[in-house]
Order: sequence, then C-alpha cells, then structure tokens
Amino acid sequence: MSAESAQEIGKKLVALSNAEKGLEAVDTLYDEKIVSIEAQGSDAMPARMEGIAAVRGKSVWWYDNHEVHAAKATGPFCGHRDDQFAVLFELDVTFKPSGQRSQMSEVALYTVRDGKVVQEEFLYFAG
Amino acid sequence: MSAESAQEIGKKLVALSNAEKGLEAVDTLYDEKIVSIEAQGSDAMPARMEGIAAVRGKSVWWYDNHEVHAAKATGPFCGHRDDQFAVLFELDVTFKPSGQRSQMSEVALYTVRDGKVVQEEFLYFAG
Repeated sequence: MSAESAQEIGKKLVALSNAEKGLEAVDTLYDEKIVSIEAQGSDAMPARMEGIAAVRGKSVWWYDNHEVHAAKATGPFCGHRDDQFAVLFELDVTFKPSGQRSQMSEVALYTVRDGKVVQEEFLYFAG
Repeated sequence: MSAESAQEIGKKLVALSNAEKGLEAVDTLYDEKIVSIEAQGSDAMPARMEGIAAVRGKSVWWYDNHEVHAAKATGPFCGHRDDQFAVLFELDVTFKPSGQRSQMSEVALYTVRDGKVVQEEFLYFAG
C-alpha cells in the first residue's frame, strides 16, 4: 500500500480535530520524529520541540490547561507542494490558570513524509 | 529606514485586499523578482510564474475574468519565521467566460525579503 497523500492525511486531521479527538490525531498521524514549531517559545516551553513524546506532552498540557468553548478546524488547504497542507483553526478558549477567555485563529502548516506528519508550524492571527 | 517586517507588509496586503485594491498591493508591496506558485498550472498559465510583469499580468487577467460578489481577506498570520506570513482569502466569484459562480477559500503563504514580497504560494480548500 502506498503512503497516504498530504491531502488524505489533512482530511483525517481536520475530521479528528472537529470530533474533539486532537490527541488521536497526534497518536495516529504523527511521525515519531515530529518537529513542532510555535510562533514563540519560553524556557518552560521552547518554540521548537522534537519527538512524539514532547509533542504529545504539549498537546496533553494544552488540553489540561484550556477549557474549550468552541473549536473549528477548516481544511485541508493544498497547493503545489505534495508534501504540505494547511489547516485553519478557530478557537474560543479559557486558559484555566488565569481564567482569561480569548478567541483566536491560527493557520497550521503541516509537512508530510511517507504518510506521516513530520512537521507542524503554527502562525497566529496578527492583524 | 529599516525594511518593514513581514507582519507590517502582511497588514498592508490584507488592508489593500479588503479595500478592493489588490493590484495596488502588487504594485507597492511586491518585489520585481516575485515568484508566484499556484496549486495547478496549464500551458496557458503555468503554476510557477516569475517577475512582476508576469505576476501583475495574472492579477489583471484574474480581475478581468471574474465578477467578485464578495471577497474577504483575514490575517496576516505570523509564526516563528520572520520572513513569512499567511492570509486567508474567502471568495464568492463568477468566472465570466463560463458564467459559473463558486465560493472558494484559500490560504496564501507569502515570503518577504528586504521589505518586499518575493514569493506567494496558494493553497486551496481541499476538504
């Protein structure tokens, strides 16, 4: 069986995200050597993380620390590169430690190799 | 004066797009050596175009051949790379030659160098 295309992987990722199964997306679609690149980092959470354990840990932390009022994934968006897709995420969440509620939107860029997501990169609305 | 950041360029591009001044964005924000990469190409319109004359020509062709019922640009979206931003475009247009009306959304990725857009790449909704 040939590896799934970026578009096929993207459709699965969007469907799982909209079914509130983001961790299942990590577990089933991500490569062991996944690289995750946030817009900004801190000492506690560097912008660049490598490896499924670190990236899964970040997802678990995120779900543990946010109350999700609404979340919508739109995509995948596909272009000329057959190893890339993008997804638009629109979120309405409360960050539990501060109680601050915010609406945010972001574009995530994914790179696929051999049917697995090997890189995710997040771009945040900065208009 | 230092070159404008990708975020500053992105804000201008989004504002001009929403003011129906897409050609002004090309004329004022794009580098002479702009590279434009569509998802798909044809003999008449290759996926990859280089140079401001070809890219401006594509924009003029697009506006000449589409009746725009609604167009919204959202962004810019900015991430870790300081030479890149993304914009979400949502369009409701009629392609004049066929009379076919369609709603489409796309993510455009822009690369900035020395305060000018040097590459644009379009990813289309493929969900």
